[in-house]
This record gives sequence, structure tokens and C-alpha cells, in this order.
Amino acid sequence: MRTFVTGAAGFIGSTLVDRLLEDGHEVVGYDNLSTGHGRFLDQARRLAGFRFVSGDTLDLAGLTSAMGGVETVFHLAANADVRFGTERPRQDLEQNTIATWNVLEAMRANGVGRIAFASTGSIYGESSVFPTPEDCPFPVQTSLYGASKVAAEGLISAYVTGFGIQALIFRFVSILGERYTHGHVFDFYSQLRATPADIEILGNGRQRKSYLYVQDCIDAILLAVERTSAPIGIYNLGTDEYCAVDDSLGWICGELGLDPVRRYSGGERGWIGDSPFIFLDCARIQALGWRPTLSIRESVVRTLRYLQANPWLLERRA
Amino acid sequence: MRTFVTGAAGFIGSTLVDRLLEDGHEVVGYDNLSTGHGRFLDQARRLAGFRFVSGDTLDLAGLTSAMGGVETVFHLAANADVRFGTERPRQDLEQNTIATWNVLEAMRANGVGRIAFASTGSIYGESSVFPTPEDCPFPVQTSLYGASKVAAEGLISAYVTGFGIQALIFRFVSILGERYTHGHVFDFYSQLRATPADIEILGNGRQRKSYLYVQDCIDAILLAVERTSAPIGIYNLGTDEYCAVDDSLGWICGELGLDPVRRYSGGERGWIGDSPFIFLDCARIQALGWRPTLSIRESVVRTLRYLQANPWLLERRA
Repeated sequence: MRTFVTGAAGFIGSTLVDRLLEDGHEVVGYDNLSTGHGRFLDQARRLAGFRFVSGDTLDLAGLTSAMGGVETVFHLAANADVRFGTERPRQDLEQNTIATWNVLEAMRANGVGRIAFASTGSIYGESSVFPTPEDCPFPVQTSLYGASKVAAEGLISAYVTGFGIQALIFRFVSILGERYTHGHVFDFYSQLRATPADIEILGNGRQRKSYLYVQDCIDAILLAVERTSAPIGIYNLGTDEYCAVDDSLGWICGELGLDPVRRYSGGERGWIGDSPFIFLDCARIQALGWRPTLSIRESVVRTLRYLQANPWLLERRA
Repeated sequence: MRTFVTGAAGFIGSTLVDRLLEDGHEVVGYDNLSTGHGRFLDQARRLAGFRFVSGDTLDLAGLTSAMGGVETVFHLAANADVRFGTERPRQDLEQNTIATWNVLEAMRANGVGRIAFASTGSIYGESSVFPTPEDCPFPVQTSLYGASKVAAEGLISAYVTGFGIQALIFRFVSILGERYTHGHVFDFYSQLRATPADIEILGNGRQRKSYLYVQDCIDAILLAVERTSAPIGIYNLGTDEYCAVDDSLGWICGELGLDPVRRYSGGERGWIGDSPFIFLDCARIQALGWRPTLSIRESVVRTLRYLQANPWLLERRA
């Protein structure tokens, strides 16, 4: 199929690009390289089926022009960091909500029939049901990030009814693995690299979160795209387990052979709008035959090893 | 209290303005007069507690400047017509979602601590639970209007967590009564005024909807604002009954002494994204002691009489 990937130079986007190309699909990769890395597309650029377009999802004309002849859009471009909503409250609105509207309008202008969208388990806010299923009680948003993603889901669903497209919506837990560029493993490793003897932890360290390995995430997306015939398919993507922030830090320290003094910022939440417990019910995607191949611990360790092998990612931030 | 009402010249907005002034509050009314009517504010303009600002909710600077010194914002400005989403898909995004973000930012700039927001039962999409409670299963959006309002709710909730404001969110059924300017009673009466012998009905006439009288709606809003101490209060506002489109048409024809030939456009839905059944569980607002004073039938008849007494409203449209 002829595919279009927004956020193509990002962590998950570039991994998806490589998998689509491997499977023989044509891929137009679209990215403004604001948080993505051109290097993540080195492998893709060597293949004839790939074309890169440098562009912003806020540029509707550019997006529309780049999307010509496409059959399926994988919309992964986003402000992907949940933590800074209150510092930059327009960023989530623009990069997640308005950008998604632009993607839908570009699809409509080009007659593109299908979208696969990277949403988030953060839209469940502080759920009262664990593991949280897709049809849990109507949640209240607690972060600008979650609000901007639930808005994007709403727009996509309305376009399904209004314009007859098909939509796959994936509500991710945090994703780990090769090309990982932000999140707690990144932060902990960055700190320990600079000051191996002590570490600062946001919150009380007892926040419980679920994580998923990036290749398992891509497997699930491609399977759902292949198998879903309904106009709209909404799937949680996660593992059947969770861990505490302290557990994950323990695995990282164990791998690095360190025993730092742990200093906690305190409180049940790491930042304003942080959810103290994220654990998704993934029975719906599992019913298609999908299972994750790596545990959370294995994913954390693999992510750490990737960061150790790619110090340029950390140096770029420093 | 010092209040700010967006959409102050609209049907519900102007009715709220009059009630706030009656209760002794100061009111700044903000409206761009695109769908509102200056005449609806004639009564308010005679009172010292009222000030009108002509402005657009898409103008953040104007909104911020107008909101100085305010304690509570009643945000009613919106594209309020659910039917034309697919014809003008940017309208709901701008006037409902982005405008709400602007209202929240203007509040933040001015240190305004409370917002009361006019949301809609349309955000429940095609619910599977009737009557539909506020915490029903996480719905899928079916209209651009519903999507834009669920996005606005998400933003408001995230601002509650992020910036410590208080929010009251009201999910309305269709509102009827004096100053009503659009909707099925308006459409049916307009048609029958022009051609008393026949009438066109969108859908099969069996769509079931709930309605609420505008003064009952305002009673509920003011009561909830007074009684809610939680950071966020979400309330369905409707009656404990519903009627079919055909029932309502029957009451209107009975009042007018007409028996027109009914021509149906057909289908379970009146337009793309129409919900065939809207019936809300209002136990939460009722627990505060509120009850509607008029039945749906009484509200329909009162609305019809208002339109008969105010032909300028129909002539303006024609």
C-alpha cells in the first residue's frame, strides 16, 4: 500500500517507516525535524520505496500537497511529552489537536480512506478501573496532553461518520526500545551519567506505569490495520503488567552497577497532570492474536543499552 | 459576583444575563453578534450592572482585555448548530474548541477562578445506555459539533488540574423557550408559515430527543454554580422524558390548527452525525434539589407562541 507517516523521523515513526518498507509498502515520511532525528531515517533513505518530505503538520497546504496518491495515513507527529503542558499550554492544542484536524483535511482533499492514529493511555486521566478498558467510564482529562489527544480522537471519529474514512486509534502506554529519545529511562540515565552517586526522582517513586516495547507496538498497529474491517477500531496497546518508577530505576541501576542516593520530589504524581497509575486492558488487540514479546523489565534494559550505545542522543540534549 | 458571559446576545446567553442582573450580579456581556441579537439585550442595557463588549472569542487580546476584574465566566458562545459540521468542518474547531482555549487563557491572564461551560448531550455520540449518565462508557464522537465540545471539556478539565480554576460543565439537551432562534420548532414553524399544507421532516420522524425549557436550564446552572465546591462539576441538564420528532410536530400542528402532508427525508438520522436517541440521566443535578418546571410539550408550545409573537426572527432568516 501507499502510506504516509507523520512524525516519520521520530522514535516510533521511524521504526514504523522501516517496518512498512520491509513489508514492501511505499512510504512518504513527513516530519519537521523539530524533535525527530534525520539519522533515524538513514536506513529508509537507502530504499526506493521511501520519500522524505520536510514539513510541518501545521502547514495544511504543504501537508495536502505531500499526501497525494496515498491510501493510508499513519499520524504519529505530536508533542509527545506529557509533562510540560502547563508551561506551554498552546503547544498541545496546536501540535496535537489542530495538527490532527489538518491531517484529516489533507486526507479529505486527497481522498485518502484510512488513518491510523497514535493516541495515548493518558486520555483515561485518573481512571477508576484497572486494567482500564477502551470503554471505561467517560474520563475527566487531567493534562493538556491528554486533552489534546482526546480532542484529536473526537475529530477523527467525527470524520469517520461525516466523511466515510476508516480510523484506527491506538491508545499507547509509554513506549520503550531502540531510538527512544525522551522519558524516564532517558532522564534517569542522563542523570546517572553526569552524577552516578545520586539521582532525583519526580514524585514519590511509587507511581505505577505500564510500558511496551516499540517493535511490539508496531506489530500491533500493523495487525490491527490489516484485520479491522469496522469503520472505527479503538485499541489499547500495552503489556499485562506494570511497574513502579522505583522498580524501573532499580533495574537501570542494576545494569549500570550503581547504587545512587535517591532524592524524591515527593507526592503521588511526578508532575501536574501526571497519572499515578496507568495500566490498560489490552484484551481487544489480543483478540486479534497479538502478544508482546518483551516484558517491561526487558524493554527497560534494552532501552538503556540503546542509550549507552548512542551517546549522541544524550549529548544533543545536554 | 462580577460575571462575564460569552455569547451574551444569544438565546441562552441573554436569558442568563437577565437572570444574573435580576439576582444583583454585575455582568460583562461579550458577543460578536454573528448569530446573537442585540435586541435580546435591550432589557439588560437599561441596567447599571451591565456592560456590553462587542468582540469575538477568537480574538484572544480582546477577550483578555474585556475580562479584567471578573470572578466567574459563563462560556456560552459557540457554533450551536450541530447540523452543518460536514459542510463547514473548521467552524466547530474554531468557534468551540479554539475559542474555549482562548477563554481559558484570558481567564488565566486575569486570574479568573471559575468557569461555567455550556457543553452538550451530543458528546455522548450514539450512547448504548439510556438514560445516559455523566460517567457512561467512554463515547465515540459522531459529529464535528460533539467532537469540538468534548475537546473544549477536555481543555477545561486540564486547566482545572493545571491551573487550579474551578469548572462547572453542563451537558445540555436541546433548549426551548423565549428567544429560541434555531432548531426543529423554528424549522417546522417556518415551513408551515410558508406552506401550511405540507411539511418536510429530516429523517423518519421517529428520532427520540429530550428537551429542556430555558428558564429551567438557567435555574440549574445558577444552582450548580452556587452549590458545587469540588474543583470540577459535570452535570447533565434535561428532563426525565423524551419525545419523537413526530410527537413534537403533532403538538405544533395542533396549536396551529393545521394538518399538513408529512414528507420524510428518511433514515433513522436527520443529518450526518445526528443521534437517533438523546435522553440524559439528570440524577446528579436533581440531587441538588433542582427540578424542571415545564414538560417537553409545554416547552414546545411556549416556544411556538414566542415565535408567533416575534415574526422578525423568522423574517430575518428568510
